[in-house]
Amino acid sequence: MIVHLKKSVSLEEAEKLAAKYKSALFENGSLVMVTPSKLKAADEELQKYAEQVFVTDTDIQLAGKQYLKTKREVNLGKVAIGGNTNNCVAITGPCSVESEEQIEAAAKLCVELGVTILRAGAYKPRTSPYTFRGLGLEGLKLLAKMRDKYGLQVITEVRDSTHADEVIEYADIIQIGAKSMYDHGILNKCGKTKKPVLLKRGFGTTLQEFVQAAEFILSGGNPNVILCERGIRTFETKTRFTLDLCGAAWLKEYTNLPIILDPSHAIGYAYGVPDLARACVAMGIDGVLIETHPNPKVALSDADQQLNFDEYRALHSSLKKVADAIGYKIV
Amino acid sequence: MIVHLKKSVSLEEAEKLAAKYKSALFENGSLVMVTPSKLKAADEELQKYAEQVFVTDTDIQLAGKQYLKTKREVNLGKVAIGGNTNNCVAITGPCSVESEEQIEAAAKLCVELGVTILRAGAYKPRTSPYTFRGLGLEGLKLLAKMRDKYGLQVITEVRDSTHADEVIEYADIIQIGAKSMYDHGILNKCGKTKKPVLLKRGFGTTLQEFVQAAEFILSGGNPNVILCERGIRTFETKTRFTLDLCGAAWLKEYTNLPIILDPSHAIGYAYGVPDLARACVAMGIDGVLIETHPNPKVALSDADQQLNFDEYRALHSSLKKVADAIGYKIV
Amino acid sequence: MIVHLKKSVSLEEAEKLAAKYKSALFENGSLVMVTPSKLKAADEELQKYAEQVFVTDTDIQLAGKQYLKTKREVNLGKVAIGGNTNNCVAITGPCSVESEEQIEAAAKLCVELGVTILRAGAYKPRTSPYTFRGLGLEGLKLLAKMRDKYGLQVITEVRDSTHADEVIEYADIIQIGAKSMYDHGILNKCGKTKKPVLLKRGFGTTLQEFVQAAEFILSGGNPNVILCERGIRTFETKTRFTLDLCGAAWLKEYTNLPIILDPSHAIGYAYGVPDLARACVAMGIDGVLIETHPNPKVALSDADQQLNFDEYRALHSSLKKVADAIGYKIV
Amino acid sequence: MIVHLKKSVSLEEAEKLAAKYKSALFENGSLVMVTPSKLKAADEELQKYAEQVFVTDTDIQLAGKQYLKTKREVNLGKVAIGGNTNNCVAITGPCSVESEEQIEAAAKLCVELGVTILRAGAYKPRTSPYTFRGLGLEGLKLLAKMRDKYGLQVITEVRDSTHADEVIEYADIIQIGAKSMYDHGILNKCGKTKKPVLLKRGFGTTLQEFVQAAEFILSGGNPNVILCERGIRTFETKTRFTLDLCGAAWLKEYTNLPIILDPSHAIGYAYGVPDLARACVAMGIDGVLIETHPNPKVALSDADQQLNFDEYRALHSSLKKVADAIGYKIV
Repeated sequence: MIVHLKKSVSLEEAEKLAAKYKSALFENGSLVMVTPSKLKAADEELQKYAEQVFVTDTDIQLAGKQYLKTKREVNLGKVAIGGNTNNCVAITGPCSVESEEQIEAAAKLCVELGVTILRAGAYKPRTSPYTFRGLGLEGLKLLAKMRDKYGLQVITEVRDSTHADEVIEYADIIQIGAKSMYDHGILNKCGKTKKPVLLKRGFGTTLQEFVQAAEFILSGGNPNVILCERGIRTFETKTRFTLDLCGAAWLKEYTNLPIILDPSHAIGYAYGVPDLARACVAMGIDGVLIETHPNPKVALSDADQQLNFDEYRALHSSLKKVADAIGYKIV
Repeated sequence: MIVHLKKSVSLEEAEKLAAKYKSALFENGSLVMVTPSKLKAADEELQKYAEQVFVTDTDIQLAGKQYLKTKREVNLGKVAIGGNTNNCVAITGPCSVESEEQIEAAAKLCVELGVTILRAGAYKPRTSPYTFRGLGLEGLKLLAKMRDKYGLQVITEVRDSTHADEVIEYADIIQIGAKSMYDHGILNKCGKTKKPVLLKRGFGTTLQEFVQAAEFILSGGNPNVILCERGIRTFETKTRFTLDLCGAAWLKEYTNLPIILDPSHAIGYAYGVPDLARACVAMGIDGVLIETHPNPKVALSDADQQLNFDEYRALHSSLKKVADAIGYKIV
Repeated sequence: MIVHLKKSVSLEEAEKLAAKYKSALFENGSLVMVTPSKLKAADEELQKYAEQVFVTDTDIQLAGKQYLKTKREVNLGKVAIGGNTNNCVAITGPCSVESEEQIEAAAKLCVELGVTILRAGAYKPRTSPYTFRGLGLEGLKLLAKMRDKYGLQVITEVRDSTHADEVIEYADIIQIGAKSMYDHGILNKCGKTKKPVLLKRGFGTTLQEFVQAAEFILSGGNPNVILCERGIRTFETKTRFTLDLCGAAWLKEYTNLPIILDPSHAIGYAYGVPDLARACVAMGIDGVLIETHPNPKVALSDADQQLNFDEYRALHSSLKKVADAIGYKIV
Repeated sequence: MIVHLKKSVSLEEAEKLAAKYKSALFENGSLVMVTPSKLKAADEELQKYAEQVFVTDTDIQLAGKQYLKTKREVNLGKVAIGGNTNNCVAITGPCSVESEEQIEAAAKLCVELGVTILRAGAYKPRTSPYTFRGLGLEGLKLLAKMRDKYGLQVITEVRDSTHADEVIEYADIIQIGAKSMYDHGILNKCGKTKKPVLLKRGFGTTLQEFVQAAEFILSGGNPNVILCERGIRTFETKTRFTLDLCGAAWLKEYTNLPIILDPSHAIGYAYGVPDLARACVAMGIDGVLIETHPNPKVALSDADQQLNFDEYRALHSSLKKVADAIGYKIV
């Protein structure tokens, strides 16, 4: 149950109430209290303090259509997505920051195509300790340099709580990766900022759990959460993962959060990325994240799935046509 | 290894060779022999008889790009798909034939929209013995009546070998359902006809197994096989199945068979079908199969996922725009 | 809802009732009618004819604990399983009948160890058309010969409806394979015999669907159904399948059917079969099916997973100890 | 490739080598260097420094049988597992520490049955922010109190990097939970202690990735890693997860690490825990972790799956018999 408290309720009173009802409490314009979903009605005491009450079926509360009927709008610097914008944001860049030269090439590609958001990893969550784990802080600084030089927004991933503060400081948009999606340390810190957070679905994560992870951030007081489907793990191994567009349809129907899709990580092979990216855009979603690299063959991570720049140019142009066909705009 | 035998080789000689090399043998213009894929080179004897030899990596042989680099064209009555047609065929109709009135309404919808293929089930593969199992032969006859009256092609499913001959006789296109996909009895019989066969992927079936099932039909001598992805079973249960578009991309890259997608069975709920259908078409595939019902609420099977006619009209119109954006045409 | 009809109800009356209530009807001592599970109470008319009524939650009806609280006993020739027997039956033999010499070696191994049931496939459901598909009828005849010569019961698989009658005629126990589990043609025929049927769970099949497939046989009038879990398909591919012992625990808790486990097909590699077989027996189930071959390296199918005879002798001896530890007996 | 460096090699020299070959380096008796597995032979320079070299197929290096043929022995306070001990350690306790009274009851049960390791969670990784997240530091202190009072070893879970140091300080055995398994922050810290680490497999994690996560700890210098299989996520939802005993057999065959199984979290329901626990022990593994609660119905987390004390007493007694049947001992 979500309770919008009256303006007259003091923070002190609200905290007492929150403790009593084992609820989350945050301020977003006014004070908002979120009880466990088992509570299905406001008792007399709560009604005294409540301006408005929203009852929810499950612990998908702040993120659900039962609370907000229309999709939230999230501002990403020069562009906004969600709400009534019908914008579909293109985000691109390499898997990892590898060098200034490499990331600058990606930044220039963005500028050339009118893409406003540059992505690249500085802290890479690898499955083996014997592989490249990213440039760390140095990578963050290179991203910041690109932002300043080219007027781009940068998005990069936080891998674990130990460097969460750093990433929150340097990035314009914070990405929580598929493997870190349950990390309370990260989720709590992302709830304390107002920067947009792109939350990736774990590859073994149900839609219910995925949206509940978003609730950690929302109930911490940050309304700027974007969901990102990037492929789930299934019995099929010809492709790295299985992009769950049925799941994307469900998220669109039942949640109020913008949705960005990541076909590159889903299939894991460049050959299928253009067709899948067009499919994503045709769904009517809020953005598409595609990995590109000036020279994919020598990439230090995810070499198989990154498009080269010419492939991306061609794809970007065709995405505009598909978006146009359904009344959306690539921004 | 696929061996195109010389025109001079007699059927008798060919049969001896096939027995010796444990191979499939069929005629399609000329005699074609398919050895197990473990055989990687033609020995002296084989070379004597061979016009042309194609070595393959796996038991995806006749269906693979290593054999035919370009997609096969399959003729579906008034329209063709595959090859260089850039056609995307729309197929629609109810889950089951329920009555003459109901199937006639669907037939009229097809005529109205220029859809040339009507689908509906007569033999339904149900998971419980205590539910409607289809009208059987009576359903087939109603479909044939619609064909004759409205000039449509009809596609319907064979559930098990006991009525395979009947379905092959009555249908224009034979559908092998997801649950029957491994049925040697059905596959063998479909290899003996030249009618187009739409082979649905089992929901627990790998892409490799799926295409190998198509090999049963192809190596029986029927080149008119169409693959249909209709959702696989994953851990996600908010939707009925998970439409595997990564898999569709793989099929497009590695096989020479036309691909039709079925978003209705994949998601299992009408709310997501339009977005998913647009995504399917944007992939650049050869057809899309969508369930419609004059009154979905009273449908005897799959009530949740069927679109009503107005929903389908709107969808059909938007599919044309998406197809157009990628250089395809809805036929 | 299951309705035991009064002795006084004639077959003709019963058939009218069954038609009216869209129910299955069969005789097993007395007449039994099974309505769709949506029907939750007997109306006045039904009450007039009913001796006893059992309401069920789902379409797991005849197979459920809500109907029969104790496990059904099934007679397998010289031994019985289920009921209060605490018997765990050992079944062994090669994947396929390959020759008289090979199957006779297996039969002798059974006799030596006191195993009473010999298994081997005559019709093999293969995933590729370019591999060995079994000896067919000749294989069935060899199995029958072993039965007569060595006093064994034989179990073999029906692959599709086209040879179902043959298998039902030759086998003592009919196996329905994982890939044929939804085949109405086979299920219907197995409902018309009284021979025991071992129904294998499809590797993509939920427990609910699995037991519902058993309902097809039970509601056809054959009470002798045994469930067999043989591994499900998951994202893990280091092993061929994943043996679902949680599922076995669920079947034991909620159904009234005996359960046999097949660790050989589950893991697909001989190295793990002994440990897994001991785990199966320790569950307190009704049987264990293990593939053995006189010389696994030259086996024509499933070469990797079959134990040689010495490995099986050692395993069989240890299974007795494990069974003994939990109050069961290997028979 | 694992390189045992000669005693004569200084730390400084070793660090230079490690940098040159992009290798992990740690001391465990002598200096050990681990290169990426792609390196398949020692060049001249490496040979000069190497005492012994082990080539490995994949990035399963320190954990693999190619490196150590026999299972590692890990000391758990009063008992050891692995090596040649044939010990199977019983670990029990509630899901969460809820109160001193509750955890003391569990401690007394351990003492009564001769169980030497008490488990309970202080930091709970929950999927919803609106549920109980554990007592945190207070919980750790209660566990430490039980250790001191009853002479038990305590094991508890680290949820994210923010409190990893705390848990490493208070616990005798550190548990890394299924949802934190990829957390580099935690893995790195666990590599720097010598306390035993129980690493749980993520429910969406392949065996390969699972063992590679153990490599992070091993290559940090901590040889005391125990693998714990606790159920993977599959399409079957009648049970919470699917206990992967095929996977356990694979781990036993290919790795040198002790294996503990957790049937409670796998099935998620108390009814199946005893049968599954017996199956686990019959596998011949190194330990079994079972959740118990003085009053499961009022438990603040995982209420459905915890056994009450009488159920656990009966189970513990039967586990001894099963272990005995296969030559193991419950310790």
